[in-house]
Amino acid sequence: MGENEFGIREGEVRTELPARFDASLYFIGRIRTPWKARKDCPKNARESEEVCTIEVDLRFVRALECVETCSHLIILYWMDRALRDIVVQVPAHYGKARGTFALRSPMRPNPIALSVVRLIGVEGNRLKVVGLDCLDGTPLLDIKPYFASTDSVPEAVVGWHAG
Amino acid sequence: MGENEFGIREGEVRTELPARFDASLYFIGRIRTPWKARKDCPKNARESEEVCTIEVDLRFVRALECVETCSHLIILYWMDRALRDIVVQVPAHYGKARGTFALRSPMRPNPIALSVVRLIGVEGNRLKVVGLDCLDGTPLLDIKPYFASTDSVPEAVVGWHAG
Repeated sequence: MGENEFGIREGEVRTELPARFDASLYFIGRIRTPWKARKDCPKNARESEEVCTIEVDLRFVRALECVETCSHLIILYWMDRALRDIVVQVPAHYGKARGTFALRSPMRPNPIALSVVRLIGVEGNRLKVVGLDCLDGTPLLDIKPYFASTDSVPEAVVGWHAG
Repeated sequence: MGENEFGIREGEVRTELPARFDASLYFIGRIRTPWKARKDCPKNARESEEVCTIEVDLRFVRALECVETCSHLIILYWMDRALRDIVVQVPAHYGKARGTFALRSPMRPNPIALSVVRLIGVEGNRLKVVGLDCLDGTPLLDIKPYFASTDSVPEAVVGWHAG
């Protein structure tokens, strides 16, 4: 059974992580959601129409100028409770071993999660958005405008998932 | 005129960064592209059909299992030469001040860049992809499968850019 809240399952493979880190991050805000425990989070972000709040630290509030003109944003956040050394994992809802880079699991060498959200509005340092599935209090790393011209690929296929 | 290779322009605003970092990253590989200087890089990733190579460190090679079934991937990489304290910036090709979070500029508190790429093939620890616009040698942070169901929003608009 699991070693931590995420668990290590039969068929999963760990690697030896590098001896030292190469770069560092600032937490630039917090994400406020209705979900206080992992079991309560939606399975994926399109499963919920819940409006969540992104609180940006005041020192970065001017970086939000013009963000209100964006219909959609890319949100990067930090999955700070995830194991980082799992290279092959067995997602509970599929039951088959997959490489970490073929999955959106929070367990990855750099646990940066990414969600595409619909922007409802901006008030000061707070953004109201739809499309998040993370725990309340999750650390924010970045906000980017979503450009359909480069970010949207409607025909994209994840073969192992479709099969 | 510029303070560094990226430059600080009139109208740009800096903030005071936090006193310490909150999390750390591993460079998990390198991106090989034909572009050795910033001026040679394509303006954006859809501008070039050049095939680039993502070299994943051998310790993470098993994390690539099943990646070959993906038509498109999300690549996260580190823009290690970017200033991090600019909250309002004036992109040269627009000439107007915009908040950092309304731009895809490498200058941001956490200089994590994101590109959606088309996967050509996987050979061992090397991925051939189309859709990158970064310098040769750029540090790799993450590879994620692109799910059209959650990542593709063809109708998304960036108002300041459309205007």
